[in-house]
Amino acid sequence: VVQLLVRLTAPPDRVGELVRALRVVMLPAQMERGCTSTQISADVERPEALCYREEWRTERDIDRQIRSDRFARLLGLMETASEPPILEFRFVSATRGLDYVAALRGRSDGADEKS
Amino acid sequence: VVQLLVRLTAPPDRVGELVRALRVVMLPAQMERGCTSTQISADVERPEALCYREEWRTERDIDRQIRSDRFARLLGLMETASEPPILEFRFVSATRGLDYVAALRGRSDGADEKS
Repeated sequence: VVQLLVRLTAPPDRVGELVRALRVVMLPAQMERGCTSTQISADVERPEALCYREEWRTERDIDRQIRSDRFARLLGLMETASEPPILEFRFVSATRGLDYVAALRGRSDGADEKS
Repeated sequence: VVQLLVRLTAPPDRVGELVRALRVVMLPAQMERGCTSTQISADVERPEALCYREEWRTERDIDRQIRSDRFARLLGLMETASEPPILEFRFVSATRGLDYVAALRGRSDGADEKS
């Protein structure tokens, strides 16, 4: 799994506008093969601090996206941010769930085994 | 880097209450050695869909946290969610920034090299 994370802070009066523009970038990604999730979120303390996320199955999947026009638009939106934006790719080598918690804590804490 | 991600949906009238409870769990983490970031965010489409995140430098750092009382409280909060919550640990093997974009797209698209 490869995560794309963009942190960008909107000028306070333009949060809605930036969210709409990010959505235009995000929606076509959801149709692409290899895209496992997308999300636009905001820090609960600072609603103008937005996080844009995409997750892709493989490095090859995301490499193709980076070359797309859609991605150029995302880079353009980063330039409208009111603070220096951050863009990161994270290569995830392993994922674990509640089983990992159970292994470390034992199973006596009442945590449901949902994963 | 190890990420902890908890997705939990608050009952609509209890979003503020859950955010405050998550903050109580989060703040002590920020004092711990090995904690590189924490965040509580909400989906911009669904403000009741909360994401709680912690990032730790090493597996050992997070293992200690999982055994803590603080973590037991987080597990307890998951049980108050109005939809089945998701808890995931993600082991990040590599991180890249705008240099990766530049390598794939060439440097002609005007993206600043900030990373």
